[in-house]
Amino acid sequence: MNAIGTEPRGKMVNSFDPASATGLSDRTRNLVQRRAALLGPAYRLFYNDPVEVKSAKGVLLYDAAGNEYLDAYNNVVSVGHCHPRVVDAITEQLRTLCTHTRYIQEGILDYAEDLLGTFGGNIKHVMFTCTGSEANDLAMRIAKHHTGKSGIIITDEAYHGNSDLTASFSPSLGAQSPLGTFVRRVPAPDSYRIPADKIGPLMAERVAAQIQDLERRGEGLAAFIADSMFSSDGIFAHPTDVLGPVIDVVHKAGGLFIADEVQSGFGRSGEKMWGYQRHGISPDIVTMGKPMGNGYPVAAVALSPDIVQNFGRDNRYFNTFGGNSVAMAAAQAVLNVIRDEKLLENSLRVGKVLRDGFADIAGRYEQIGDIRGSGLYVGIELVKDRASKEPDAAAAAAVVNGLRARRVLISATGAKANTLKIRPPLVFSEANADRLLSETEAVFATL
Amino acid sequence: MNAIGTEPRGKMVNSFDPASATGLSDRTRNLVQRRAALLGPAYRLFYNDPVEVKSAKGVLLYDAAGNEYLDAYNNVVSVGHCHPRVVDAITEQLRTLCTHTRYIQEGILDYAEDLLGTFGGNIKHVMFTCTGSEANDLAMRIAKHHTGKSGIIITDEAYHGNSDLTASFSPSLGAQSPLGTFVRRVPAPDSYRIPADKIGPLMAERVAAQIQDLERRGEGLAAFIADSMFSSDGIFAHPTDVLGPVIDVVHKAGGLFIADEVQSGFGRSGEKMWGYQRHGISPDIVTMGKPMGNGYPVAAVALSPDIVQNFGRDNRYFNTFGGNSVAMAAAQAVLNVIRDEKLLENSLRVGKVLRDGFADIAGRYEQIGDIRGSGLYVGIELVKDRASKEPDAAAAAAVVNGLRARRVLISATGAKANTLKIRPPLVFSEANADRLLSETEAVFATL
Repeated sequence: MNAIGTEPRGKMVNSFDPASATGLSDRTRNLVQRRAALLGPAYRLFYNDPVEVKSAKGVLLYDAAGNEYLDAYNNVVSVGHCHPRVVDAITEQLRTLCTHTRYIQEGILDYAEDLLGTFGGNIKHVMFTCTGSEANDLAMRIAKHHTGKSGIIITDEAYHGNSDLTASFSPSLGAQSPLGTFVRRVPAPDSYRIPADKIGPLMAERVAAQIQDLERRGEGLAAFIADSMFSSDGIFAHPTDVLGPVIDVVHKAGGLFIADEVQSGFGRSGEKMWGYQRHGISPDIVTMGKPMGNGYPVAAVALSPDIVQNFGRDNRYFNTFGGNSVAMAAAQAVLNVIRDEKLLENSLRVGKVLRDGFADIAGRYEQIGDIRGSGLYVGIELVKDRASKEPDAAAAAAVVNGLRARRVLISATGAKANTLKIRPPLVFSEANADRLLSETEAVFATL
Repeated sequence: MNAIGTEPRGKMVNSFDPASATGLSDRTRNLVQRRAALLGPAYRLFYNDPVEVKSAKGVLLYDAAGNEYLDAYNNVVSVGHCHPRVVDAITEQLRTLCTHTRYIQEGILDYAEDLLGTFGGNIKHVMFTCTGSEANDLAMRIAKHHTGKSGIIITDEAYHGNSDLTASFSPSLGAQSPLGTFVRRVPAPDSYRIPADKIGPLMAERVAAQIQDLERRGEGLAAFIADSMFSSDGIFAHPTDVLGPVIDVVHKAGGLFIADEVQSGFGRSGEKMWGYQRHGISPDIVTMGKPMGNGYPVAAVALSPDIVQNFGRDNRYFNTFGGNSVAMAAAQAVLNVIRDEKLLENSLRVGKVLRDGFADIAGRYEQIGDIRGSGLYVGIELVKDRASKEPDAAAAAAVVNGLRARRVLISATGAKANTLKIRPPLVFSEANADRLLSETEAVFATL
């Protein structure tokens, strides 16, 4: 946990700091200044030398000068930048009709049916929003209405959104971003530092203690919400018997279990369509977003019917753009491509190539402390030495910016900002993985 | 104001009620059932006989059987359904690049500059979201951070969004939708019942009283937020000297004035690009959404630099889809079309045709109590008789559904659901207005 005073205000992993910038091109410097003048002080760019992007295709990005970048970071364009089937589906629908859910339309029903078929358990309804933040915000509104309680339990460095409510339970936004009085944190399942067989029981015990505290303060438990890959905590994809014990404790207290699949859903793990399915659990609510429309703003809340019954009686939900004709066409095309191009299989196979490659590099570089992830979500934790496991954020920043200089794009994550975060579009090939690995080795050689 | 117990749970003006539905076609009944099974109980359709839509062009919608509907309601597709310039701009950008604001891109800067040129005053920065709800949510987060206070003042039947925070200051969602303890309401400027010269001073006095109450409760005033057309309160576009006295009181108390332009912006009033400009005031924050991308999900918060200074130091704001390449291409195309096709002028001219036409109809039908609005935002208040001004919601529902049966789409609004709400795409022509008026007259003849 970070405390106010121990970190710079408004910190962000891998953010460009104009105050310490050196060696920028004239063009970059001018654009950065223009950006600050127009967009104000709350926007952050990536990298010490920010990248200007002009076009993209598949896993490649191109800058204004036509230089090519290997994109090993963008999980929104999950089926690849500018995928022609998604572009065509959006274009055709745009030329036909773009309107909302106050009229009957078949497209939204066909997509809802298709999507709901991927969950199992009692997840039978889906409600559409535009962003993952809106999805988590709505999920919590429904959870509060259903339970009559207000407490929320999250992991230490969770990120669940940018709305007033979701930001209040997103501690990874930094120590100056206010947390709600109704929010309690538990440590992430740190598989690098805790024995595998202890992680689930320990997490369940910590959640139980926080529930007790919420009850004593009169808040009670509305929901436990977690991303099953624990992305912003540092990417802890294993073991997969962690969430089972937690969901039991949460249900016993009358709370709901919300699986935030914004990062880990739509096949990212390679093993299952949804990250929570790797833990063999049945959540009450599933939220999703980012890759759902390959960049078209579309997100959703899927849930068990009994949970939304009273909410639907007492409230209506309308989102002007959520579930509109074009959003549904985009989302349907993405789901079709994921299946037709067998992207789960590709994610699993190429993810293994990446992790095996990093294991090989780790034989030569002591800074690599741990190699984690599932499918094309890869976390590489860097440490000062393997005995102490002391986090090495400076090394992570050097690798991220060294790769950017070699035109390979990744980022970093975790409370200590020392874990390389690699999550390319799911169409990333073995050749792409080889390029990433050889460039990474070249950067390690310069550290 | 509505009180719990005096209205049905979860009420909405002009919503389809499956429990009382009669005479639906087999196809409609099946689709309505399928919808409830897939989307759950929180979704609402319009009209006693919901409309299925398949395609659209300009101001016309078409159903599955190819029947044509005159669209006098959809303010999202403000430059007309499927406008080719907007479709082409989105398509071209989709084929080139769709990514986010953590990279440098020129399109967002060019659009930001163009948009910021329309406000005047000290509105110099713009931040992009996907929806109007997100824009109002972010505006309030920033207002709270800047002022250190939490109180919000709104009008009685305001609607500002569907997020947890914005729903908590959107009483028009119904009496079962919870309001925040930090929210205070003032009556809308009812120009039908209060003398014009009393409205502004009265509203300022009521806002001052609510500020005093917020201060006594320890909340203090963060912001007053209003839609200058007071859409969900019943559409009160005049007089235009109402908000001046209010902003003075708000500023004196250290609060911010947020102009919610989601409904009234982008030329809707015909007189000015932004509704607040009709009141000759300079708000601290301007929020916008719906018509900004003609259906593509894009919205924004524009604001005075000093207000976001501390927020930007302590927090970052990132919205995965907000301000992405395609959103900016869509928004730029819309702004270009508004100017090139002189849509403010059209809105002003055709809006007058509509109001003049309703004045003529009012000569024959006593139910028309008041005719309001500006440009192509038209409110027609229906009453049981003109002496008592008693609201007649049943007549409004009969006109809305009668027009729907004649394939002309409008809706109703206001606390008493007795005001016809007419707000077609801004490309609505005089011929379209004539058709709307003659169909309306035909419906009144049957009441």
